[in-house]
This record gives sequence, C-alpha cells and structure tokens, in this order.
Amino acid sequence: MISNKLPKIFYGGDYNPEQWDQETHREDLRMFKLAGIDIATVNVFAWALNQPDETTYNFEWLDELIDSLHANGTYVCLATSTAAHPAWMAKRYPDVLRTDADGRKRKFGGRHNSCPNSPAYRKFSKDIAAKLAERYKDHPAVLVWHVSNEYGGDCYCENCEKAFRVWLRERYGTIEQLNRAWNTNFWGHTFYDWDEIVVPNNLSEHWGDNNSTFQGISLDYARFNSDSMLECYKLEHAEIKKHVPNSVVTTNLMGFFKQLDYFKWAKEMDIVSWDNYPGLQTPVSYTAMAHDLMRGLKDGDPFMLMEQTPSQQNWQPYNSLKRPGVMRLWSYQAVAHGADTVMFFQLRRSVGACEKYHGAVIEHVGHENTRVFREVSELGRELGELGDRLLDSRLPSRVGILFDWENWWAVEKSSGPTVALNYVDQIHKYYKSFYDRNVQADIVSVDSDFSNYDIIVAPVLYMVKPGLADKLESFVEKGGTFLTTFFSGIVDESDRVKTGGYPGELRKLLGIWVEEIDALFPDMRNKIVVNGEIGNLKGEYECGMLCDLLHTEGAETLAEYGEDFYKGMPVLTRHSFGKGQAYYVASDPEQTFLNGLLEQLCADKDIQPLLNTPEGVEVTQRVKDGEEFLFVMNHNAEVSTYELGGNYVNLLNGDSLSGSTQIAGRDVQILSPAK
Amino acid sequence: MISNKLPKIFYGGDYNPEQWDQETHREDLRMFKLAGIDIATVNVFAWALNQPDETTYNFEWLDELIDSLHANGTYVCLATSTAAHPAWMAKRYPDVLRTDADGRKRKFGGRHNSCPNSPAYRKFSKDIAAKLAERYKDHPAVLVWHVSNEYGGDCYCENCEKAFRVWLRERYGTIEQLNRAWNTNFWGHTFYDWDEIVVPNNLSEHWGDNNSTFQGISLDYARFNSDSMLECYKLEHAEIKKHVPNSVVTTNLMGFFKQLDYFKWAKEMDIVSWDNYPGLQTPVSYTAMAHDLMRGLKDGDPFMLMEQTPSQQNWQPYNSLKRPGVMRLWSYQAVAHGADTVMFFQLRRSVGACEKYHGAVIEHVGHENTRVFREVSELGRELGELGDRLLDSRLPSRVGILFDWENWWAVEKSSGPTVALNYVDQIHKYYKSFYDRNVQADIVSVDSDFSNYDIIVAPVLYMVKPGLADKLESFVEKGGTFLTTFFSGIVDESDRVKTGGYPGELRKLLGIWVEEIDALFPDMRNKIVVNGEIGNLKGEYECGMLCDLLHTEGAETLAEYGEDFYKGMPVLTRHSFGKGQAYYVASDPEQTFLNGLLEQLCADKDIQPLLNTPEGVEVTQRVKDGEEFLFVMNHNAEVSTYELGGNYVNLLNGDSLSGSTQIAGRDVQILSPAK
Amino acid sequence: MISNKLPKIFYGGDYNPEQWDQETHREDLRMFKLAGIDIATVNVFAWALNQPDETTYNFEWLDELIDSLHANGTYVCLATSTAAHPAWMAKRYPDVLRTDADGRKRKFGGRHNSCPNSPAYRKFSKDIAAKLAERYKDHPAVLVWHVSNEYGGDCYCENCEKAFRVWLRERYGTIEQLNRAWNTNFWGHTFYDWDEIVVPNNLSEHWGDNNSTFQGISLDYARFNSDSMLECYKLEHAEIKKHVPNSVVTTNLMGFFKQLDYFKWAKEMDIVSWDNYPGLQTPVSYTAMAHDLMRGLKDGDPFMLMEQTPSQQNWQPYNSLKRPGVMRLWSYQAVAHGADTVMFFQLRRSVGACEKYHGAVIEHVGHENTRVFREVSELGRELGELGDRLLDSRLPSRVGILFDWENWWAVEKSSGPTVALNYVDQIHKYYKSFYDRNVQADIVSVDSDFSNYDIIVAPVLYMVKPGLADKLESFVEKGGTFLTTFFSGIVDESDRVKTGGYPGELRKLLGIWVEEIDALFPDMRNKIVVNGEIGNLKGEYECGMLCDLLHTEGAETLAEYGEDFYKGMPVLTRHSFGKGQAYYVASDPEQTFLNGLLEQLCADKDIQPLLNTPEGVEVTQRVKDGEEFLFVMNHNAEVSTYELGGNYVNLLNGDSLSGSTQIAGRDVQILSPAK
Repeated sequence: MISNKLPKIFYGGDYNPEQWDQETHREDLRMFKLAGIDIATVNVFAWALNQPDETTYNFEWLDELIDSLHANGTYVCLATSTAAHPAWMAKRYPDVLRTDADGRKRKFGGRHNSCPNSPAYRKFSKDIAAKLAERYKDHPAVLVWHVSNEYGGDCYCENCEKAFRVWLRERYGTIEQLNRAWNTNFWGHTFYDWDEIVVPNNLSEHWGDNNSTFQGISLDYARFNSDSMLECYKLEHAEIKKHVPNSVVTTNLMGFFKQLDYFKWAKEMDIVSWDNYPGLQTPVSYTAMAHDLMRGLKDGDPFMLMEQTPSQQNWQPYNSLKRPGVMRLWSYQAVAHGADTVMFFQLRRSVGACEKYHGAVIEHVGHENTRVFREVSELGRELGELGDRLLDSRLPSRVGILFDWENWWAVEKSSGPTVALNYVDQIHKYYKSFYDRNVQADIVSVDSDFSNYDIIVAPVLYMVKPGLADKLESFVEKGGTFLTTFFSGIVDESDRVKTGGYPGELRKLLGIWVEEIDALFPDMRNKIVVNGEIGNLKGEYECGMLCDLLHTEGAETLAEYGEDFYKGMPVLTRHSFGKGQAYYVASDPEQTFLNGLLEQLCADKDIQPLLNTPEGVEVTQRVKDGEEFLFVMNHNAEVSTYELGGNYVNLLNGDSLSGSTQIAGRDVQILSPAK
Repeated sequence: MISNKLPKIFYGGDYNPEQWDQETHREDLRMFKLAGIDIATVNVFAWALNQPDETTYNFEWLDELIDSLHANGTYVCLATSTAAHPAWMAKRYPDVLRTDADGRKRKFGGRHNSCPNSPAYRKFSKDIAAKLAERYKDHPAVLVWHVSNEYGGDCYCENCEKAFRVWLRERYGTIEQLNRAWNTNFWGHTFYDWDEIVVPNNLSEHWGDNNSTFQGISLDYARFNSDSMLECYKLEHAEIKKHVPNSVVTTNLMGFFKQLDYFKWAKEMDIVSWDNYPGLQTPVSYTAMAHDLMRGLKDGDPFMLMEQTPSQQNWQPYNSLKRPGVMRLWSYQAVAHGADTVMFFQLRRSVGACEKYHGAVIEHVGHENTRVFREVSELGRELGELGDRLLDSRLPSRVGILFDWENWWAVEKSSGPTVALNYVDQIHKYYKSFYDRNVQADIVSVDSDFSNYDIIVAPVLYMVKPGLADKLESFVEKGGTFLTTFFSGIVDESDRVKTGGYPGELRKLLGIWVEEIDALFPDMRNKIVVNGEIGNLKGEYECGMLCDLLHTEGAETLAEYGEDFYKGMPVLTRHSFGKGQAYYVASDPEQTFLNGLLEQLCADKDIQPLLNTPEGVEVTQRVKDGEEFLFVMNHNAEVSTYELGGNYVNLLNGDSLSGSTQIAGRDVQILSPAK
Repeated sequence: MISNKLPKIFYGGDYNPEQWDQETHREDLRMFKLAGIDIATVNVFAWALNQPDETTYNFEWLDELIDSLHANGTYVCLATSTAAHPAWMAKRYPDVLRTDADGRKRKFGGRHNSCPNSPAYRKFSKDIAAKLAERYKDHPAVLVWHVSNEYGGDCYCENCEKAFRVWLRERYGTIEQLNRAWNTNFWGHTFYDWDEIVVPNNLSEHWGDNNSTFQGISLDYARFNSDSMLECYKLEHAEIKKHVPNSVVTTNLMGFFKQLDYFKWAKEMDIVSWDNYPGLQTPVSYTAMAHDLMRGLKDGDPFMLMEQTPSQQNWQPYNSLKRPGVMRLWSYQAVAHGADTVMFFQLRRSVGACEKYHGAVIEHVGHENTRVFREVSELGRELGELGDRLLDSRLPSRVGILFDWENWWAVEKSSGPTVALNYVDQIHKYYKSFYDRNVQADIVSVDSDFSNYDIIVAPVLYMVKPGLADKLESFVEKGGTFLTTFFSGIVDESDRVKTGGYPGELRKLLGIWVEEIDALFPDMRNKIVVNGEIGNLKGEYECGMLCDLLHTEGAETLAEYGEDFYKGMPVLTRHSFGKGQAYYVASDPEQTFLNGLLEQLCADKDIQPLLNTPEGVEVTQRVKDGEEFLFVMNHNAEVSTYELGGNYVNLLNGDSLSGSTQIAGRDVQILSPAK
C-alpha cells in the first residue's frame, strides 16, 4: 500500500491553482468532493514562484494550498518544481540552459529545459528539494513526493562534454581501453588524450535522424545522458530522504521512452509512476504492454498511474474526445495491469499557453454539468466502493519478455542492414501473441531472475551483455524454453561484433550459424514453409524485412524459406539444450505465424489462457493473499460474450456471473470467484 | 484619381535598366510607346548604386533615367531603394543583418534582408528617403512614391530583443500585467524583470513549423514584428512627406500575407498597392478575394495593382506560361475588384541572378515580335481607350466578411484541437459561396463600420477583442444578420480563454453553449441533418474537421449531427436577437451546404446576384457618380452564355448587348447600361 | 599497363588490419592466397596512428604490414591516410575543422572532415605525403599511390571565404568585371571591395535544398570548392612525384559525383580510379554510363575499379545481398567498360563503427567457407587465367555524349522554369538509347576532340562556354551529326543569359528561334506528332516537362506538338549545316521516341550494333593491337539466346561459339574471334 492514510486506489491528478484565483480554487475543492477526488499533485511547475531569486524562497502560497486541500480531505502528491527553471536563473546562470544536438545554445523557454550537468541547476534544484522536504516533512496531507517531471531530452554543452570525459574515464580507466572499445583505428579516430573526445552530435558523429558514424561513442553518450539525469534525480531524492526517511519518492516516467534506461532508474525510486497518453491510433495491446513494462521495472510491484487525460489531449495532430466509457475502461486497464492509482492530467484546465486545450476534470466552463465531469464522478464513486481490496495485489506470469534499453539504442543506431527494424515493434509483435490469448506476460530485464519463468522470449537480442549468454544457457539447461530472433547475438556492450560467426555467444545455445543476413525492400516478401506441423501451424506463411541465411549446428529445422536463392534454408529452428529448448526465428513473420508458434510453446509448458474471449476483450488477473481477481475489459463498442468456467461475482456491481456471460461495449468487470 | 497628370488606368511596371546599357534602354523606350506603357517603377533595388559608402550619394544615373522616361512620355513610380542594403553596409554595420528564428546571424545576401530594429538601417534608410524626396520633389514625371518593397520576414537579434522589451513595457506598463496576460504561472515562466524576457524563437518557445509553448508571447512578437517594419516604413514615409506634402506614398503589399497586419499598415499609406502572383493552382475566387481584401484595407478605396507577371513566374516549382488571353483577363479582374492601375513585374527581363526566368514585357530576345508583347500592347491600347471612365469608382456591397490578422496568428498558433484548421481557407469557403453567385462582398476588419452591411460573416472568430462582442450585438439588435462558426469566441486578445463556457463573449448573442470540441481525423466525416428545409437545403450533408458538442440557450436548432455519440446534437443554430439573427455553424461543412445556407441568408435580406452566370463566369460591379459598370469575365477556355435583363453597351468594343449573351473563352466585357 | 610487376587485372581491395591483431592478419594472408588476391590498398585512414602528434611519426606498423603483404605475394596500393585528420589535430589546430553550409563550425568526427583551405591541414597533409613517399619510394610492393580518399563535401569557414576572394580576384582581375559577371546591379548587390564578398551559403544567398538568389556567385563557389580540394590533392601528388617521379598516383573518384569537376581533376591524375556502388535500384545502364564517364575522363584510357562491395552495402536503407553471380557479372561489366582492375571494399569486415555491416571478402565469421568467399575465389582464379590479354585495350566508339560539370551545376541551380529537370537523368536517357542497342558511346567533355566522332549528342547544353559554339559548328560543317535539346544555349559561363533569342550561340547552327518555354506539371503531357516517318518513327509519342515554343529559321520540322495552344509548332527540327546535320529536340520525349530517333541517326552514319541481343544482355567491345574482345553480359536471372555472325572462342572457358548462342543467367562471355 502506498500510504496507510489512504487505503484505496488514489484518485486525483495534477492541480496548478497558482494559475487562477482563490474563488476558483474554492470552487475546485467543492467539485473534488463531488468527484471523489482524494489526491492532488501540486507544485510541479512553480519554481519561479517559490524562488524569485537566488536567496529568497516564498512558500506561503504552497502552505495555504496544501492546508486547504487537506482541510477539504484531499491528500497531496508534492512535486519539487524543478522541471522548469526560472527565467531569472537562465539570465543570471546561463549554464542552466541546454545546448542542442546542433550545438545551439538554447534561450529561456519551454520546460524540461535544464542542462543535467549544469553546476547551477544541480545546486539550485538540490536546495529547493531540501527546502521543501524540511518544510513539509511532517505535513499530514503529503503522501508521495514527486521529483521534477517527465525527465527527458539531451544536452551537448561544454559542461556535458567535460562530464562525459569524466564518465568515460570511470568506465574505461585508460584511453587504450576506450580506443579498443570504440574501435577507433577505424577512420583514424585514435584518441591520445581524454580532452580530444567531443560529444557525439550533429556537428561531429551524427547526421540525419538517428545515424552515427561511431555507434560505440553514441551508445556511451546515451548511457551518460541517462545517467546524468538520474544524477539530478538522485540529488533531489537524497535531500528528501534526509528529512523524510520514510517518504515515498517517485518521478513520473513515460512508458517506452527511449532516452532513459528506466530499469536503472527504477532502482532509485520508491515506487514507479508513469503518464499514460496513448496516441489516437495506439493499439490497446500496446498500452497494456507499456503498463507491463512499468510493472516490470520493479519486478512486479504495483505502480502509480500518475497521469492520463480525462478526454482530449492537445499535442496530437487531431485531438479527438475520448468516447463515453473509454476513460473508465482505460483507467481500469491500468489497474488490471498493476496500477494502484488513477490520476489525471489535469484537474482544471489552464486558460493560457500550450496546454489550455488539454482535457481536464474541470473544463473551462467551470461547473460540474459536463459529460466529462459526470464520467469522472461515476468512476470516483466506484473506486471509493472498491476500497483496499485490490491494493498491492500482483499479476502472476510464467512468461517473460526480455527488454533492454541499451539494446534498443544499439539496434536503432546500426548502420545497416535495414532501416525498417524497430525494436519496440518487434517486442510488441511477440507480446501481442500472448496478449491476444489472455496469457499474462512480464516484461523483464537482463538482470531479472529468469528462474521465475517457464518461457523467456527475447526478440532481436542484438547486444549480448557479459554473462547473459551463460544465464540463458543455464535457464534452458534447467528446462526453460527460450526464443530469440534474427539480428541477435551480434555485438557486445560496446557494439563490437562478436567474430567467429553469428549469433555469437548465443550460437552454442541455439545450435545454428548465421552466414548471411539479407535485407528485403518493404514490398518484398519471402515464405515460411512449415515442415509438417507445429501445433496448429502448417503450410506457408509470409515473412520479410530481414532474412538470415543460416546453417544448423545441432538444431532441428522446423520451417524453411520458400523463395529466393536461399529457398530450403532453415527459417525456424529448435535446439534441445539440457532439459530445455531454444528456438530461433530467422526472419520477421506475419502475426498469424507468431501466434501459432507461441501458442505451441505455451501448450508445451501447459500455460493456458486466463479465459477464452472474443477479439477486443482483454483479461488479466491480479492475486492478493491467494484471492484472485479477473479483470475483463471489452474494448469493443458493442456487447461481447464469453464463457466462464465457474461462478463469479462482479465486484463493480455485485452481479453473479457464470457460464455464457455478456459484457457491454466498453464495459469492465472485476470478477472474484463466488464463495 | 491617383494623379491628374495621368487620368487613366496606369499601365506599366518595374523597370531596372541599371542592369543593362544605354542602347538597350533606348530600345526599351521605343517599345514602351508601342505597348502603351505610361508608368515605370524605378530605383527599387539600387541602394548600392545610389550610395557607394556612408557619405557619398550618386543619383546622376537616376536623374538621367527619370528624365529620359519623362521625355518619352513615361511617368515614374519612384522607389526608395531600401529593400536590400548594400554589401558595404553589411560589412561595416553588421547590425543591419538579421538573425533568423534559429538564432543564426545572417551574412550579406538576398534581399529584404535588413533588421527592422537596426539603428544603422533606420538611419541610412531614413537618410536616403530624404535625399530622394528632396531631389525629385518637383520632378514632373514622379506620380507615386514607393517605399522599400514587399516588407516581410522577421528578425530575432539582440536589437530586436531589446526593442521587444520596450514594446512590451509600453503595452503592459507593469511586469505583473504582462505575467497575467501571458499566464506565466504556467510552466514556471514568471518574469520578475523585463530583461528576463527573450524573443520567442526556435531556441526558446518555438519548435517545428508553427508551434509555440506560449501563444501569448508569440502573438505579441508577431505584433511587434509587424509594428517594427511599419516603423521603418513610417520613417521613410515621413521624410517624403516632409519634402513633398502632397505626395502619394505607398508600399507594395502581398494580399493574404500572414506576417504583417495590413489593416494597421493601411492607415499609414496614401493608397494601397499590391503584387498579385496567383500560384499555378490558385482558384480565381481566391485571387478575387485577395483583391477584395486589398480594397477593404482602406474601406473600399481603389488600389494599385503594382505587380503581376505578363506570363511566367520563376519561383514556382513548375512555371507554366499564362495561356493566350489570361494576362488580359486577370488584369481586368483586378480592375473589376477595384484596381485603378495595371502594372507588371517586369518591363524587361534581367540576364543574371534568380529572376532572369521571370516573365517580362520585353523578353530576352529583345524585340516586339513575341506573343507576350503583342498581348501587352493590345491591352495597352484598350486601357488607353477606356480613359478615366472607371477611375475612382466603388464596388457597392451589403455583405461584409470579417477578417483579422491577429486572429489568424492566434488560430494557427493554437496547440490543439486540430492541425487541419487553416483560417484563410475558412474565409475563402464562405467568400466563395458569395462569389460563385455574383454577390459582391467586402472584406472588413473589426474596426469597420458594420452598419454599412446587412450581413456580417465571421468564420472562426477565435479571438474576440475588447468591444467586438458589444459591437456585434448592436449590429444584430438593429436587424443585421450575423454568422460565425466553430472555434469562435474562445480567447481574448492575449490568447487567454474566456472561462464560463464557449463561445465566451459571443454566447449571449448566439444563444448557445459549446460543451466539447471533437477533432476528426482527415478521413473521418460526420453528417449535417437539416430539420425540414432551409431555403433549398434539405436532407443530409457532410461535415468534419471540428465538431462542437453544443447546447442551445435560446437559439433554434436548424440542423443536427447525424453520426457518432453526439448524433442529434445541434450543428446549425439561429438565434433571434433584437431585430436580427445570429447563426452558428458548429462544424466544417461541405461547400454545397454553405452555398445553400448563404443563399438563404441573402434571400432573407433580398440580396440578389448581379447576374446569373454559368460556372467560371465572374461578375462584379463598379459604380461612379451613379453610373454602373458590370464586369463580366469568362475564366473558362470556351465560350459561355448568360442572360442580360436590360440593354447594355460593352465599353471594350462598343457592342450592344441584351438578352441571351455570349462571351468568348477568357474574354472580358465591361457593360454599361445603354442610354 | 599500370605496372609491369603485375601484368594482369589487379585483384584485391581495401585492407585495414590496424583494426585487428597479428594472428587475424596472418589468417588474412592465407586467405588472400586462396582467393587469388594480389593487391591490397592500405593506410587509407591511419593518419592518427602514423602521426600521434605534431612532430612524431610512427610508421613501424606500416613497414611490417607492407613487408608481410609483399612476402605473401600481395602488392600494395599505398594511401596517404589524409582523408580523416587526427583528433589531436582538431583540438590543437581547429582551423582543420569545416564550417557547414549553415555556418556551423564542426567538431571532431566522421571522415572527409578537413577544410580544404585550412593552413594546418595543407601543411600536415603535405608533410605526411612526403614522409610516406620518402619512406616507401623504393619498396617493391608499392604499385600505386592513393591520395586521400573520395574527396567531397564543402566548407564555408573564414579561411575559405578569404581564399574565395583571392580566387575571384584571379578570375576577374577587377571588381568591375566581377560585378558585370554576377549582374550585381540586380537586387542592389554591387560590390565596391573584394572584402565585401561573402561565401554563398544558407546564411547569405542559398536556401532550401539547392536554391540560390545569385546563380553566378554560387557557380563560382562550386568551381572554387572543386579547385580547393584539387589543390589539396595536387600538394600531395607533388610530394610523391618529388620522391617517386615514375609513380602511378591516383585518388578514388565516385562516378557522377556532383561537387567535383572530374574532367579538371583527371588532368592531375596518372590513372583514373573509382568506387562503384550502384544503389539497389540503379539500372545497369546507369552503371555502364558511369564506367564510360570514368573512362572518358582521360580520353579512353583504362581505369581502376578501386572499390565495389563483394555483397552487401551498409549505408542503403535496405542492404540486400548481391545474388549469386552478380558480383562476378558486375566485376566484368567494369572490365568490359575499360577497367583494368577489380578491387573491393573491403578485404575483411571491421568489428566496430559504421561500416561493420558492409560486405567484405572475409566476413565476421573469419573463415573461407562462405558463399561470398567462394565467389571471390572463383573470380580470382578466372582473372589469373586471363593474364594480360585484355590489359590496356580500348573501346572504339563513333558516338560522343557531351557531359559538363559546370553545366550540371548551372542547370540545377536555375530558378525556373521547372524543378523537374535533372541533368544526369537527361544524359542517361540519351545514353540508354545507344546502350540498349549495343552501340558503344563515349562520354566526352567540351575540351574533347570532336573529330573522333560521327555523332555528338549534347542533351540540355544550357551553358555554352566560349568557343564551344564555333567548335560545334565546325564539327557539323565537316559532316558531323549534332543533337541538342530544350534548355540549351541559354547562358554563358557566368550563367548570364545570351540575349537576342534562345538558343543563343547555337541558334545559327540549329536554324531555330525559341520564343517561349512552357513548364508542365508532372501529370501533364503533350504529344509529338511525326511528320511522315523518321526511320521507324511515325505517328504520335508523348512528351512533357518543358516544351519550347519555337520558330524555324532554316531548319526543317520533323515533328510537331499535338496539343495545347502551341499545337502545330515544331518539336523536332533538323538543320542542314555544311556537310552535316543539327537536330533539336524541343521537349522531353518518352524513351521509345528517343530510341527510334537515335537509331535513325546511327543508321544515317552506318553505325551498327556490336551484336543484336535480347533485353538485359549487354555487349561491349575492347580492342588491343587489332585484336577484338566482345564482352557479352547477361543481366537477366534466366538464360538468354542471341545470334553470332562468326566463330568465336569464349576466353573464360575456351568454348567455341557461333550462330545461335546461349548465355546462362548472370553469366559473362568474353569472345575472341576464332583464328
């Protein structure tokens, strides 16, 4: 439970009343009550208000705000306000301003605008975090501490360049080690002194959208940039802990956000929280996967849904309304995947600047007689009635999908063999095969304990870090099922190719040798011809993008290419290794093939769907102290029907359900076995 | 009449003989005579020639040029040559160079290249205007003074930044007022000192093509930039007036040019002039609308067509020839909409640099035996024969279409709800409904006298400036018909939302409340279902882009949505207010619907077409001292037929016309009632 | 023969063992033997290794490398290593870094990164070339000297700006001459001092992708930039010659590479060499044309194929494998067009940085049991067996296609009449008509001796340099056939229009006057209507893009436009001039029309195909001491059949061939008349 002061699913969101007057604020408080809102995130962007100059702090407004919320029965998630530096700071300490990838020094403006290696920013952000912690450490309203906001971006200033050199010296020890790691004898890049190293950006090694002449350098800069921001977070985190040792400290993450290695970040967070803004055409399975990633950051611990919009966004090209019922449906989807809070951006709309057309619980009209407010209130009532029943429950899973940020960076920095390869899309294709059949999967990191799982799927495991191959071998040896794909086992953690034959360190486990990698044009396809049957798979399927030309070395060929000069070569292999099996998918297959393949892998391990449901009806399971909760969510606009194998009660309305069961369009059921 | 020295439609254009030799110039003069050319715009880009250094002026070449033109019977439109600074000036006074939106200091090159807040530019441009005025104040050839050329562009240098702060201090008085106007408590933007404010550009608040994090700041910069250039214009204007109090001073505008608030500029101009360069796929109705905007800048006063190409342009991707007859047709279209001059860019083609493939009266071949020259000469003869009959006539109109530059800036800086909204396209859709039926419309500003009109149409009146709502209420109260659309009444002049319910200050007049605004994807459509009939409208029509979900508060629902969860909500409403009616169009309808709706609004006010003509045949009316002239223009390549209700004489050939009347393809008739 | 030490087609490629260890290098040597590799290009990017600081040189590694290669029987193409400066140099002598077209100073990174006017770069590159020449002048392994690598790019720094002014002073003598050449009275650009001139880039005269406000300035900068790099080449070349007077010195060119005027460069090269990287959809006729251009640079002398990939590239979006047989086929295509070497990039793959996925003779797996290595070895064996038979043979041709770099620059810098005009595509259209019929053509320069040819084709001869018109007139007068097209004869070498009627100086030769030039939209077409018959041409054909409206002045009209207001005007003319004929093609025709037209021109001159072959089967002829070799290359994947008129022996396998002859898919035959 995040806080025993509020033993229920927190309900609320971002609230910035410093933008309006007291009268409006009082009206807000009245409406919070109406809507069942019990937590407000405050002080996210008020640094300039809190600190009008180097030496003056002014928290009176915040005292009043927090007190008035508390008096109203609304708890507080207290932000540290450091996500946008004040204008005076940019003017007097220009080192706080970032330099962009084109080497351009920024001017004051926007947000998330501070250089993470700026001495001034580090000093002032640390100081204000300390001031806030000291002042509010005992305030009964404060349940969670929220450091900065949506960390992201990058900087290429001189301070970053110098800090990068220090970071490199710590990583490599000697310049010779660095030269080796970066293969600097290529293109005459040999460095003789740390000070010769410059940041890789559009003025040095980068060009175009995502291209680098030296992947190793770029990879280290990506690590360094993620670490630099993490340092900023840790500075504030430490100040809070100094004053409030038992505090719950978080910062709001952003799902599959490329720039920051969230597995590393999560180690420094007391609870994971994140902002869920599906684009207007984002598949619901993708949102589900993002929730699972966030849950996976701390090995299955519940997380906070820190932000979602009640209806519209404003930064999409076309910002359509959430249709009636969708806000409730997606809120429960978060809970169904491990969230213990449902929070919005934002509680009231701004009147000026770029987010004024972003949806809010309280719209510009200012009163409660709106569709959006009615839907919010209805959900508030439901969450109140659920109480603490679901809190702290876990999602049991026997399938792990391996995801790795550094691998993501490396795969997509690669020059060749194809620009079509998108790492997260590949992860999603495999995830979706489980999702569509209501088989629960965890997203795991290379550091996770694989022994918790029967199946580990690792699409495009391009970079094999030290020890990983051994760990995977041991997992399979003991009976685990492992699957990986084309473009795996190619490089080490410095993006240096492991010579001696692809897939490098995974070759022994997989029992294959990949001789060549063909890249297909977008309109080209090859065929997968199944040898006999693999579960329900037989006959031919399409594949494309990349096609490995491989030779088996102990593995069995389950399917072959059907076209081109490598027709008849293996495209799907299985290698018996110890008590387990290692699969290799040598090309990018159509979804149907993957679905059949993973169904069979599950069947081999006796992993069954939670329920069999029609398309668009999602099911997850949370378990707490042996009690099981099935979440059934109908993403279709129309009613759907599915079969229940036992007797259940729907926690949301007390209905008893069994046998052939209906669920209304966009409705949610939380089923508990009838006693 | 622009000048009683030349009591006819001026005919001529830009002439830059400093690019070639005397012999060629003498040949030009001979050919001007042949073509009936009686005015030449000179000295547009000759600053470097006129002033070889800080202290030296050299006007001998210009004396000779003007004298030789005058001796030839050709009058002069005398430019001040300040549209491109000399290279020596850029070298010795680098503050004349602009800094672009990416913060890059420009080098010498191009044209329209001077920073409008450069002290050196202001000094030197003022000085040369004074020198020219003094020198040519009594020259009998000079009819019009032409300041600079096609003002435009923007600058983000330090001088502009400082000037912006001064401009803001004048606008807001205190920093607190500015903070309020810009809603700076959003994203921690509070300013404590004027010097903390920086220019909004791609290094601060802007990104992408047209996006800003702080619309209020960007809006003020747009105002400031327009004002800064206007200051430059006014400096030169004042110098000319000092020496030539009765001079006619202008600068050439560019129609729907976004950067400059021409309504404000026109107040400082003795006559409006503009350059008409329809793109190759520009609808003729759009060109007509642009002429009407130019006429509207000074409340219906005739304007100068300062530039058009005799045939080709050069800056289009594909520069096709004007087909035979088109140059004459489009020249008369200008006159038909209020032009009292027909002028070309250019009289002779350059041989070098980027405009050498732009069409000219005298082509590179250098003689008169070309199709283009023959067409120009024929038109010259006709204009000579027309004499002063049409000069100074006006276009009577009972329909006003409200257009506002600041609204344009604000609408298209908005972050959400849709990127698809283009303000001028919306204006054009409504304009076209009148145009296609030969109903004359004026483009009016928020400062215009609405009592001159029976109908005011104000599409997307997003920003409602102080006093405008009252003015519109008063207009309707007295019997006027007002129509506005979705995304109206939302913000004040600082782009702050008027809370309490959309459409804000227009809510009372329109009798509605807009609860939500849905944004549709480009391929999505909703339906307009007409309740009964509205004139000829009945049944269903398509709409899209934005869909307001609105409630009537006194208004009558004339049509409803036919699809989606808001099916049955009003999409067209009418509110009786005093003696008049206020209409609200809640979505973006197909053109047919608008045509029918506006036809009915006209019918209700007994506004009839000038003539009923087939598609592509445009009609306007100019009136002078009670005498009416009907311009009939056939934009089709083939002959068309229309019905005349009385007896007319075609001024262009003396033909008597009545009843069923033919007009040849691309032909023009100017009809005067037979006496 | 390039070297009598190795009297055969050189076989080898780039080799950079400084990236790996000695053991790997020894394995490489073993495999070179297996593959028949006899030359390795070394030291291309090893500057940082060779020179760790200003005063220290370290060539021991290179001594060992060259010695070990030589001991192994592998010769050396010795590069000077100056294609990428060391990091220490960038740090200590920042003038070596380039400034890009946006005025941004680069940082250390990438390659081909040195400012060509940097004093430090010129000094250090000259010095190291001298050191290398001195050290290896007598080494028996060294056959060819390879200066730098793939010169290209541009720089806009202050040193370049100053050097540009000096270059201009040398070109024009006086500022008045420069002002005249650039037509600076346009847009007030008059220069009074050399120091007022700035480099034309995106901060001054350029914008967008390829646009300039002053074509004359941009053209001179393109010349200057090509010359600046050539100066760098010449500095190194001179140092080598100083020590090794009989050396063969080259630098690797890149076919139709726009930035450098290779005709000028070739004058300074002992042998032309180039890198052939067809994109994945490059037509084989385009590759053939590029080989012919490279051969044409030195009037038909054999050239070196310095680089090609054994299989994959890495910098394409989709890097597909070369299908079996294609590497051999394309290698022989190079030889068939004049190459006397077959060399690869690269002999072994890197393990790190951006080219690690580029194909190599030795793949990452490191052994010889790969498809690629087998194909390389097989070709090595064949080339060994061919010995010196083909060396130094020439390709006889009676057709010249005129190509000119400055014309290329000028055509594509033009503002108007169309953006659709691509000079090389036009050259290729005409080339392809000859190619498809196995009629051998040379690519010639304006300086070539036209009297070697019966037909000169000069598509889009926009810029007519001094003396060229006379030279062409003399060619035709004596009986030659000349053909040119629309957009020819327009400007002089400063991009100034030749007034008095297009096509300017070519008007007399062609007997026409072009009055207007219409530009068509991409989806628009006109028709060519043939008057009677021209060889096999009759009836109607399509044309588009540009359409000249022309009048004959002595020429005969062979075909007319079939559409638009200029229907009936000439679109193809022929002018008898002296003993010859001059053709003018006034629009851009479909390929079929060109094929028919050029077939007829050949027929008139009794120029016959080498062989008649089906589509996709290419034929060329090399001749040496009267001995003829026919190269027959089947680019189809399937077997093809053609007719031989005599008895031949296939040099590649000794087969006797005559009459109806088969050639396997992707196979090559080298036919010598049976004796």
